[in-house]
Amino acid sequence: MKVLLVHAHPEPRSFVAAMRDTVADAWRERGAEVTISDLYAENFNPVASAADFGSRANPDHLTYALEQRHGLETGTLAPDIRREVERVLAADVIGFTFPLFWFSVPAILKGWIDRVFLSGPFYGGKRVYERGGLAGKRAFAAFSLGARPHMFGPEGLHGELETGMMRHFFRGTLGYVGLSVHTPFVAYHVPYVDDAARKAMLADVRDYVLTLDERETFPVPDLSHFDDRFRPIRPERAAE
Amino acid sequence: MKVLLVHAHPEPRSFVAAMRDTVADAWRERGAEVTISDLYAENFNPVASAADFGSRANPDHLTYALEQRHGLETGTLAPDIRREVERVLAADVIGFTFPLFWFSVPAILKGWIDRVFLSGPFYGGKRVYERGGLAGKRAFAAFSLGARPHMFGPEGLHGELETGMMRHFFRGTLGYVGLSVHTPFVAYHVPYVDDAARKAMLADVRDYVLTLDERETFPVPDLSHFDDRFRPIRPERAAE
Repeated sequence: MKVLLVHAHPEPRSFVAAMRDTVADAWRERGAEVTISDLYAENFNPVASAADFGSRANPDHLTYALEQRHGLETGTLAPDIRREVERVLAADVIGFTFPLFWFSVPAILKGWIDRVFLSGPFYGGKRVYERGGLAGKRAFAAFSLGARPHMFGPEGLHGELETGMMRHFFRGTLGYVGLSVHTPFVAYHVPYVDDAARKAMLADVRDYVLTLDERETFPVPDLSHFDDRFRPIRPERAAE
Repeated sequence: MKVLLVHAHPEPRSFVAAMRDTVADAWRERGAEVTISDLYAENFNPVASAADFGSRANPDHLTYALEQRHGLETGTLAPDIRREVERVLAADVIGFTFPLFWFSVPAILKGWIDRVFLSGPFYGGKRVYERGGLAGKRAFAAFSLGARPHMFGPEGLHGELETGMMRHFFRGTLGYVGLSVHTPFVAYHVPYVDDAARKAMLADVRDYVLTLDERETFPVPDLSHFDDRFRPIRPERAAE
């Protein structure tokens, strides 16, 4: 089993970095081969731009997804994009460790998605969700935040965390490209807890990895409920 | 009236750039003074890091929000952050023009939020949502995407767009810091439509700006329904 772990935290000694190491060790304990894309350490460029393309299908007007397909066909994508795409395509499981910034991923990780999740091999036309290019692979995440659990849920201040605030990531990004996405490990209230609580969370994230196969995955749309233009066929059953 | 328009698109001749110009002109037609933060043109750095702080409260361990407050107090925040913070604080209305990338904003705009929305003046402790630091200011957005309207809504393939997939942005980011957030102008199916359709959308986005004051705003939590630790007081009424 090959695992790609994508890590995004600006402090090398952070709790999230400790989660990354614990997660990597737990996968190795399971016999997996682990590759880590440490975006801050690698000084990853998160800005999608014309500079990503060594040759252009249309030099006069940048349509990013169009140039992604052209760059892939001609082998002229930027080297850092090619490296990350190869890492993703070689992996059976793709994991993410990051601090929650504004109910989403840090910009350096958002840009990894913007640049690496190529139109063509990752998704395209009708190839989304269960038909996405990464179908057959799995994903997971372990992330930290300052808030407490009681601030989430149907009656909580912020509403649902994983299926509400983070729907764009778990469903709209990872699920969209066909990944089977396990529900995440969430480390709450991290800046405010003591070392003992952090050690307990590291033990919990190890257990999370060791038992990941039994953990539920997020639902994705059943495409048989939509027509060939993705219009709902049976509206009363289609969306969830 | 002062308007700050934050623009993020890698192609200067894009439809989104035309929306930016149309939006700016419509605000000037209303008598507003318009400032534009054109993130690609300004080569804005979206990566939150230790380099953002000229002096450190804790040089041994980067806690980003803590150093934001220290940097503000000591006047040692990076000059680009200071400039953008001043633009936001001087504005009555903050607008965004961007292409939707992965049901969210492009990384360069995500990083503008990560770095500019400072702990302290923008939010902190109990100062969130209606008590957020930007309360009294308004926000709006005009964005493009490839999908069609029938792919969204309660029965649509992707579920709700503005309150579902983009909840993290409209509610969890703009609403969180106290902005009164008007529902956005959405330009659907942009890469696939003809010039006449694009011209019609530009006329519509002009009308959107001219009539913005009458347009509804997104709901935010009523904080009187939560206690001093943000636990729901009346769970049956609290979350929406």
